[in-house]
Parts: sequence; C-alpha cells; structure tokens
Amino acid sequence: MATTDKQRGPATPIDATALEAARAAAPNERIVAGVVDGFRALADPTRVRILYALGRGPLCVRDLALLVGVSESAISHQLRFLREHSLVKPHRRGNAIAYALDDHHIGALFREAEYHADHVRLGLADHPYP
Amino acid sequence: MATTDKQRGPATPIDATALEAARAAAPNERIVAGVVDGFRALADPTRVRILYALGRGPLCVRDLALLVGVSESAISHQLRFLREHSLVKPHRRGNAIAYALDDHHIGALFREAEYHADHVRLGLADHPYP
Repeated sequence: MATTDKQRGPATPIDATALEAARAAAPNERIVAGVVDGFRALADPTRVRILYALGRGPLCVRDLALLVGVSESAISHQLRFLREHSLVKPHRRGNAIAYALDDHHIGALFREAEYHADHVRLGLADHPYP
Repeated sequence: MATTDKQRGPATPIDATALEAARAAAPNERIVAGVVDGFRALADPTRVRILYALGRGPLCVRDLALLVGVSESAISHQLRFLREHSLVKPHRRGNAIAYALDDHHIGALFREAEYHADHVRLGLADHPYP
C-alpha cells in the first residue's frame, strides 16, 4: 500500500460502488483456505481421472485401477488422500467397498471446469457485456 | 497392474457395467491437462480472493488492491498469471482497464467450490443413496 497516485491518492477507489459490492460478498479466511485446499487437492491428473470416473457413479478400487491404468495400490493411495480432503467417501456395496463423490457439488465443479477448459481450447466467446 | 487376485484374476472388473459407463465418459488427455492446469492456477489464496471479487463484476487494479489488501503491483502480477491461464480478461472502461472473469463458468466453479467447502465445514449430508 506504499504506492501514491498524483490524481486521487492511494486510498481512493476508482469505482466505490463496485468495490463495496465486492467487499460485502468477500469470503472469510476459513472459506478461502477451504477452497484453496480443495483446488490444491484437485490439481493432479490421476485424482482428476478418478473423480471424473466417480462422477458417473460409485466404483471400487479394482475397477478404478482398470479404468485409470494404474495399480490398485496407487488408486488406494489417492483415494485415501481424496477422503482426507473430503472429496470422496466409501460406500459399502455387499462385500465390496465402492467409492463415491463426497457430495454432488464435486460433480458440478468438475463439469464447470471441463466447460471452461473446452471454452478456452475452442476459443469460444462468453456472453457479451451490455 | 502386477497384483493378482485369487478369486477373479487381475483383469476382471467387479462391476463391468459401471466400468464401461465410466470408460465411455472418460475425458481425453487434453481435457485432463486443461482441468489440472486450471486447478493448479486456482490453488492460491490471493488469486482466489481476486476471482471471488470479480465474480461480482469487473474491477480495476487499484480497487482489487484495496479489497484484497496487497499492493497494486502484486495484483498486476497475479492478473497477468490469471490472464495467461485464461481465467480473467481485460475489459476497457473509459480510460481505465478493468478485469473480468474470463467466462461465466469460472464464477459457477467458484460457487460450487464454496458450497462444497461449506458442506465440509458444517458436516452436511449429501443426497442419500437410493
């Protein structure tokens, strides 16, 4: 905050209304930390593949290993990590344990991430500004 | 894939139908890489605060600095990074440059991340399985 501005001074907002609206909606420390921790946990290709797969429904370790193309122990390791970050949860199915997305927001978040990645890749325009 | 299983053999799926459904919906390499890159870019508290703020509408560097509580040069540095990752875009407003979310999927993604973080923090149950 050591910058100065000849015309307005350092503490004067350019758009006070927009700044107040953003300030009123700003997340608290705990929400920011939770969101950052979640994004960090998601920034891994194997975990992304596992979560995509679970978006279709619960799967057990062996089927995830066949799908993702890594060993069952690698899948178990990643599932443990994902459980610790509240991204998946175990789901008993007869004698077997299947894993499911922790809640439906994870699936929705992935769809938005994919739409955005598609959007960037294809160079699509967003809704025009008024 | 070196594991063996006494009952089924290593290559037999436990739930072949679920495995096929997940395989048919699996994202390609490029989508996975794009999604991972996006999550990695989002895993930073200052960037998360900037993107939350832009979720309310475009803001310029000075107002972002006032809001987030860091210097204007720190904001400019983060905005450059976010532009390189196609997460924000500049938006001319008279003589000033404001920044906006690159597309509305970023805003939706953040809302889902926040709902999930809330959900975890409050220990809410998801929709029950049938």
